[in-house]
Amino acid sequence: MANPIDFYFDFSSPYGYLASTRIDDLAGHYGRSVKWRPMLLGAAFKESGQKPLLDIPLKGEYAKRDFARFARLYNLKFRLPDAFPFAAINPSRAFYWLDDKDPALAKRFAKAVFRQAYVDGRDVTPVDFVCDLAAGMGVDKDKLKAGITSAEFKERFRGEVEAAVQRGVFGSPFIIVDGEPFWGADRLAQVEEWLVTGGW
Amino acid sequence: MANPIDFYFDFSSPYGYLASTRIDDLAGHYGRSVKWRPMLLGAAFKESGQKPLLDIPLKGEYAKRDFARFARLYNLKFRLPDAFPFAAINPSRAFYWLDDKDPALAKRFAKAVFRQAYVDGRDVTPVDFVCDLAAGMGVDKDKLKAGITSAEFKERFRGEVEAAVQRGVFGSPFIIVDGEPFWGADRLAQVEEWLVTGGW
Repeated sequence: MANPIDFYFDFSSPYGYLASTRIDDLAGHYGRSVKWRPMLLGAAFKESGQKPLLDIPLKGEYAKRDFARFARLYNLKFRLPDAFPFAAINPSRAFYWLDDKDPALAKRFAKAVFRQAYVDGRDVTPVDFVCDLAAGMGVDKDKLKAGITSAEFKERFRGEVEAAVQRGVFGSPFIIVDGEPFWGADRLAQVEEWLVTGGW
Repeated sequence: MANPIDFYFDFSSPYGYLASTRIDDLAGHYGRSVKWRPMLLGAAFKESGQKPLLDIPLKGEYAKRDFARFARLYNLKFRLPDAFPFAAINPSRAFYWLDDKDPALAKRFAKAVFRQAYVDGRDVTPVDFVCDLAAGMGVDKDKLKAGITSAEFKERFRGEVEAAVQRGVFGSPFIIVDGEPFWGADRLAQVEEWLVTGGW
């Protein structure tokens, strides 16, 4: 079987959310699986010198309008959380902790995080919020909390983020298909074309 | 008849070039005309604090790969001029000078500028290069040169660029359909959807 497609995203990226609602179906249509890889754009920004979208004059105003418009096109409810952008460290760590045990559960958890943030406008950053969300999906809250707050697991997540930046991930979503990088929710059509054609 | 679609671009933007090869056909399919409006990204960058794509670590490397890949998808020859990015003041001024007299000719001229830059890799910035290119299309070179180097016309072009930034144009291409802004060559599909549906 072909290698999984790598789907990098930051939970604090509405475009990551938009792509997350389609990437698995899209890939599955071509017999491909998808490995979800939450990362932190802040780490990439340190390398690239970029800054959060809404802090950029002109572009930030456009982005706010575009988030909502893009979501309507996908028939998704959408709002920005009051605290935005946010540091998605805890939900990301929880994702990898769950992913080590049950990748399908980890994806369901990630989808729930996205919905809490962009449908309900919740603050998804507190460790207890994250652990309660997972507990609602049958996860042992205490084990999860102990896991993701351990020095070892913090290091693990730091390594994941560093590896993403090393691979050139500078934005969200960032999709790598057989070594070929595609940046942006608006590139899913090109990702699909790459899967259809095997590259052009 | 509906208002024309505004197509803002910088000649120094490969994504502007890519979109320029499709925007008129796309709009025409829905009975819409397109007003081409060259501008200077540098002026927008002063407002937004952004900088040229290739100067941005990680993103610049991706962009170089993406320019070429996107062009292949469109079956277009593509190279970057040796001097890139470039200050497209003269070709832009010449465009508006021609546009005042013959908009169809101005578009043919703009397409020729894009081809000279991104197919042949020429430096399209010198005033004599620009005027010779137009002369090859039947334009009186001396009149054009006198026109675009006049203080009055410099002011005219400055006003066009300022108006673009005032409208929120921060990137290239930037397409405005009935007041609705779309940024990026990868958004042509959404522009089309907007034309089909009248907005969503």
